[in-house]
Amino acid sequence: MPGTRPPSAPADRPSPAPDGAACGRLWLVPNTLDLGTGHDTPLEQLLPRAVIERAAMLGHWVVENAKSARALLKRVDALVPLAQPLQQVQITELPRPRKDGRTDADAQAYDQLLLPALHGHELGLLSEAGLPAVADPGSRLVQAAHRHSVTVEPMSGPSSLLMALAASGLNGQSFAFVGYLPVDPVARAARIRELDALSRRSHQTQLAIETPYRNAALRAALIEHLQPGTQLAVASGLTLAGGRCISWPVARWRREVPALDDRLPAVYAWLG
Amino acid sequence: MPGTRPPSAPADRPSPAPDGAACGRLWLVPNTLDLGTGHDTPLEQLLPRAVIERAAMLGHWVVENAKSARALLKRVDALVPLAQPLQQVQITELPRPRKDGRTDADAQAYDQLLLPALHGHELGLLSEAGLPAVADPGSRLVQAAHRHSVTVEPMSGPSSLLMALAASGLNGQSFAFVGYLPVDPVARAARIRELDALSRRSHQTQLAIETPYRNAALRAALIEHLQPGTQLAVASGLTLAGGRCISWPVARWRREVPALDDRLPAVYAWLG
Repeated sequence: MPGTRPPSAPADRPSPAPDGAACGRLWLVPNTLDLGTGHDTPLEQLLPRAVIERAAMLGHWVVENAKSARALLKRVDALVPLAQPLQQVQITELPRPRKDGRTDADAQAYDQLLLPALHGHELGLLSEAGLPAVADPGSRLVQAAHRHSVTVEPMSGPSSLLMALAASGLNGQSFAFVGYLPVDPVARAARIRELDALSRRSHQTQLAIETPYRNAALRAALIEHLQPGTQLAVASGLTLAGGRCISWPVARWRREVPALDDRLPAVYAWLG
Repeated sequence: MPGTRPPSAPADRPSPAPDGAACGRLWLVPNTLDLGTGHDTPLEQLLPRAVIERAAMLGHWVVENAKSARALLKRVDALVPLAQPLQQVQITELPRPRKDGRTDADAQAYDQLLLPALHGHELGLLSEAGLPAVADPGSRLVQAAHRHSVTVEPMSGPSSLLMALAASGLNGQSFAFVGYLPVDPVARAARIRELDALSRRSHQTQLAIETPYRNAALRAALIEHLQPGTQLAVASGLTLAGGRCISWPVARWRREVPALDDRLPAVYAWLG
């Protein structure tokens, strides 16, 4: 390993690598969307072959959660044998976020996580579901890669946000992802009204997510606080059995209750 | 066919179908990102198996462009034989947009396009690249499906927007896609400054696209009009040979000229 790292970099501290030379690349590996749902759609149905083959090859990973990363690699191994036994694959977790979503880790912590790439190894970045670094941790490792001239290779995979947007029929030429809405009911109602007005003014679809155990509360709040003429879409359980997308004017949501399984992950989209 | 459509619907005008009964579904089928580039990465490397198998089964399509749809179906056929000969697959084009991106077609025109689904056929929606109805035509057909209680089935595939966002290392917890910027240099400069300020104020990554022949002009304008401290990413040729993503502060873009092939499609992302 020391032979493949840039000669000027001490083993414990990365320094800028010569442009591309000798460095491994950082692969952004998409995960499935069936985390924790008990569903087990065959992996080749959900991910392109290139992703499965790349995942089988990688011996170094930085991941959101080591346990779910190992679970994915076991599914990969059943299709394309891993290049090395799973026990020998190096899996390091990203710093845990605090409650507000940020971490206490500084840039140097991410430089450390990047070391395998600076030492010449191909390195994978994996989150628990969907694309890493989109509505998920990982972007600070990608930033570190750009700082150190490590080539970043994004791979195609399921994105619940864009599948929900496509399935909503709402404006796909202009949209914003706003993350989670406030949990406090008063703050949430204010934020919903603000985003409804913004959406109407700028003809921009708004996208939000919620943890499954708050699905029912968020949907009720959206139905209550969005204008009756606003179109509201709920895409529930994308790629999963029992998944469906309902896209109705709010006035109709107030009259009808569609069958939605609130235990499934959902994406919310609206356009005023 | 008449036997499978809702009995109350005359053959030439769809009417609301009974909830799900007898209707076909509308499948949102992702396309590759290699349109017009002359690259021919094997299809199974780019699309999940479920997409290829579904595309092989569908006998009815609504597409952005019939010629590129047939080209995709030929690539599908080489992997999974089409359920019927390509000449017998019914392919209808979406209404052509005017120069401003809108169409003159009214809602009834989209109801007409939905007829195969209302008559019990599974129907595919396909754009020329990536996900249909996202930064691409098709959302009005999806709206028609929701109006008529036709189930909408989004499928996972490559999204250049989210791959670019992931590869940029910029904020993936809050982002907006703003489409194309104005072509007029004065209006474009004003819009760039406006979106830069918005991005800085709300910590929201801004994403834009451009047609390849204006790539050089847009990049130059972004480098000139964004603040020096704004981080600008250019993701060029995603999934293609020669593709790369550069993510630098604008100040560095002003000093250095990276090798980017301006003939490749590109996505632009920035965060002030």
